[in-house]
Amino acid sequence: MISWPTIYHVLEETVPLYVAMIVAYLSIQWWKLFTPEQCSGINKFVAKFSIPLLSFQILSTNNPYDMNIKLIFSDILQKSISLLGFAVISKACCVEKFDWLITGFSLSTLPNTLIVGIPLLKGMYGDEAVKLLSQIVALQSLIWYTLLLFLFEFRAARGIDTTSSSETANEEESGTPAPMRERHEEGQAKGVSARCYSAFRFLLVVGRKLVMNPNMYASLIGLIWALISFRWRIQLPLIVSNSIRILSDGGLGMAMFSLGLFTALQTKIIACGTKKMLVSLGIRFFLGPALMVISSYAIGMRGTLLKVAIIQAALPQGIVPFVFAKEYNVHADILSTAIIVGMMVAVPVALGYYFVIDHPRL
Amino acid sequence: MISWPTIYHVLEETVPLYVAMIVAYLSIQWWKLFTPEQCSGINKFVAKFSIPLLSFQILSTNNPYDMNIKLIFSDILQKSISLLGFAVISKACCVEKFDWLITGFSLSTLPNTLIVGIPLLKGMYGDEAVKLLSQIVALQSLIWYTLLLFLFEFRAARGIDTTSSSETANEEESGTPAPMRERHEEGQAKGVSARCYSAFRFLLVVGRKLVMNPNMYASLIGLIWALISFRWRIQLPLIVSNSIRILSDGGLGMAMFSLGLFTALQTKIIACGTKKMLVSLGIRFFLGPALMVISSYAIGMRGTLLKVAIIQAALPQGIVPFVFAKEYNVHADILSTAIIVGMMVAVPVALGYYFVIDHPRL
Repeated sequence: MISWPTIYHVLEETVPLYVAMIVAYLSIQWWKLFTPEQCSGINKFVAKFSIPLLSFQILSTNNPYDMNIKLIFSDILQKSISLLGFAVISKACCVEKFDWLITGFSLSTLPNTLIVGIPLLKGMYGDEAVKLLSQIVALQSLIWYTLLLFLFEFRAARGIDTTSSSETANEEESGTPAPMRERHEEGQAKGVSARCYSAFRFLLVVGRKLVMNPNMYASLIGLIWALISFRWRIQLPLIVSNSIRILSDGGLGMAMFSLGLFTALQTKIIACGTKKMLVSLGIRFFLGPALMVISSYAIGMRGTLLKVAIIQAALPQGIVPFVFAKEYNVHADILSTAIIVGMMVAVPVALGYYFVIDHPRL
Repeated sequence: MISWPTIYHVLEETVPLYVAMIVAYLSIQWWKLFTPEQCSGINKFVAKFSIPLLSFQILSTNNPYDMNIKLIFSDILQKSISLLGFAVISKACCVEKFDWLITGFSLSTLPNTLIVGIPLLKGMYGDEAVKLLSQIVALQSLIWYTLLLFLFEFRAARGIDTTSSSETANEEESGTPAPMRERHEEGQAKGVSARCYSAFRFLLVVGRKLVMNPNMYASLIGLIWALISFRWRIQLPLIVSNSIRILSDGGLGMAMFSLGLFTALQTKIIACGTKKMLVSLGIRFFLGPALMVISSYAIGMRGTLLKVAIIQAALPQGIVPFVFAKEYNVHADILSTAIIVGMMVAVPVALGYYFVIDHPRL
C-alpha cells in the first residue's frame, strides 16, 4: 500500500526539478540574465556533455547479464507498435509527416523513468522495481535515444535532400535555349546523377552524424564497459569515474534549467496551444500505457512486473527527447508543454494507475 | 608521513578538474561547438547560480559556534597585510592601480581550498585538517569573496564616475562665449553638484550591485541558517536541500568547464605572457604562504594548526576569483594562467612545503 511518506518522498525528488526550471524561467523573465544565444549555449552543453555522460553512468552500472527478457521484449514491442502506428497515421493525415512520427513516438514511449520513475515506483513496489526500471533506462539510452537521433538526422538529411533536388530542378529550368539540346541532355544526366549522389549523400550524412553524436558513443562505451565490468568484476578506477561525475553530476539540474530557459523564451507556458497540449497529454498518459498493456499481455507478463511496466509507461514526458527536439528544432514547444504540464499531474496520474491496477483481482 | 596512496588520492580529486577543463578546451579548439557568446552564457550560469549555491552549502554546514579563533585572526591578518601592501605598491608603480590591487589580493590570498586543499591536507593531517579548512572556506565565501566583489564593483563604479566627471568637464569646456558669464557660473555650479551627485551615485551603485549579487545573499542566508541549525539542531528538509543540490552539484565541473572555454578562446594557454605568469606564480606560491607565516606567528599559532595554515596558503589559485575576474573583465588572463599552470605544479609544491615544515624541529 502506498503511504503519505511515500508520496512526500516522491515530492522530495520531483520538486527540486521544478525549482531548477522556475529559477531558469525567472532568470529570463525577471532578471533578464541570458540572451537567447547564451541560452542555446547552455542547452548545447546539456545535449553534448551532461546527457551522454549520464547515459554512460546508467549503462555502465547496469548488469547486462541479468536482464528481464520479458520486460525487454514488451518494451521493444510497445515501441514498435507506436512507431508503426504513428507512421501510418501521420502519413495519412498530416502535412509534417516526419515531425509527427518523431513527436508521437517520443510522447507515447519515452517517459521520465530515471528521475520521476525510480523514486515513485520504489515507494510502490520496493527495490525490485528499481532493478527493473534501471533496465528500461538502459534500453532508453542505448536503443531508443539512438533511434530517436537517427530519426532526427534522417529528417534533417531529407531536408538537405529536398533542397538539393529542388536546386537541381531550378538549374534545369533556368537553362537558356542557346545550345539548348546539349544543356537539356546535360541537365537530365545531371538530374539522374544528382539523385544518386544525393541518396548516397543522404545515407552518409545520417551515418556520419550518428557516429559523431556523443550520446551514441557514450551509450556504446557504457555497454561495453558493463559487459567487461560485470563479467570480470572490475570497477572503474576512481580517477576515471570522478572525471565522468564532475560533468554528469549537474546534468539533471542543467537539463531542467535549459527547459526553464526555453519556456521563458516562449510567449506562453503552454507554448504549443491548448489543443496540441491535450493531444500530447492524451498520447503520454493514455496511449503510452495502453500500448504497454497490449505488448505486456502479448508477451505474457503478469504480476508485479506487469504493474511496474504499466505505471512506468504512465510517467510524465522524459527530458532527453525535449533536449533533442530543441537541438533539431522539431516540435520543441509540444514536448516542453508535455513535460511542464505532465510533471504537474504526474503524481496523481501515477497514483490513479496504481489504485486501479493494484486491485487484488488483477 | 605522506604516502603514495595519499598522493594518488589527491590526484583522484584533482585530475577530474583537468578533464573538465580539457574537454571544454577541445570543444572549442577541435569541435568548434560554442560561440564566444554561448561561452559567456555558461560562465554567467556558473557565476550567478553554481557558485552562490556552493557557498550556501559550505556555510550552512559549517558550525559557526565551533570556530578556531586563532585561525580566523591569522586569516584576517594575512588578507589585511596583502591588501595594504598591494594598495601601496600598485599606487606607487602601476598604471592600472586598482586592477593590480584586486589581482594581487586574489593571487596572494585566495587559493583553491575547497577542491584541492581538502583532499590534499586530509592525506597529510587527517580529519582535523578538514575541519580547519572548512572554516577557511566559510570565511572565503562570506567575507573575502564579498570584499572581492566590493572591490570589483568599486572599480566599475569608479569607471562610471570617471566617465561622468569627464563628460561634465567636456560640457563645461564646450560652453560657447555668447552669454558667457551665466554659462560659466552655471557650469561651475553644475560641476560642484555633479561631483556631489556622482559621489552619491557612486556609493549607491556599489551598495546596490553588492546587494543584488547572488553570492552575497547566498553566503548571508547560509550563515544565518547555520546559526539556527547548529543552535537548535535542525536540519534543512530534504526537499529544500535537494532543490539546492540539483543546481550546485555540477557547479565545480561547470566552473572548470568555463575556465577551459576561456582558455580556448585565448590565443595561447599562457594567456598573459611568460613574465606576468612568473610574477603571478611567485605571488601565489611564495608571497601568499610568506604572509601567512608572518600572520600566524604574530597571532601565536603553533603545531599542526600552523602547518595546515601555511600549506593551505600554498595551494593553487582558486577558481571563484577567476570567474569574477572574467565577469568584470579584470586580468582574467592572468588568473586563468595562474590556475592552469598553478594546478600543474600544485601537488609537488604542496609536498615540498610539507617536507620542509613538517620537520621535527619546527
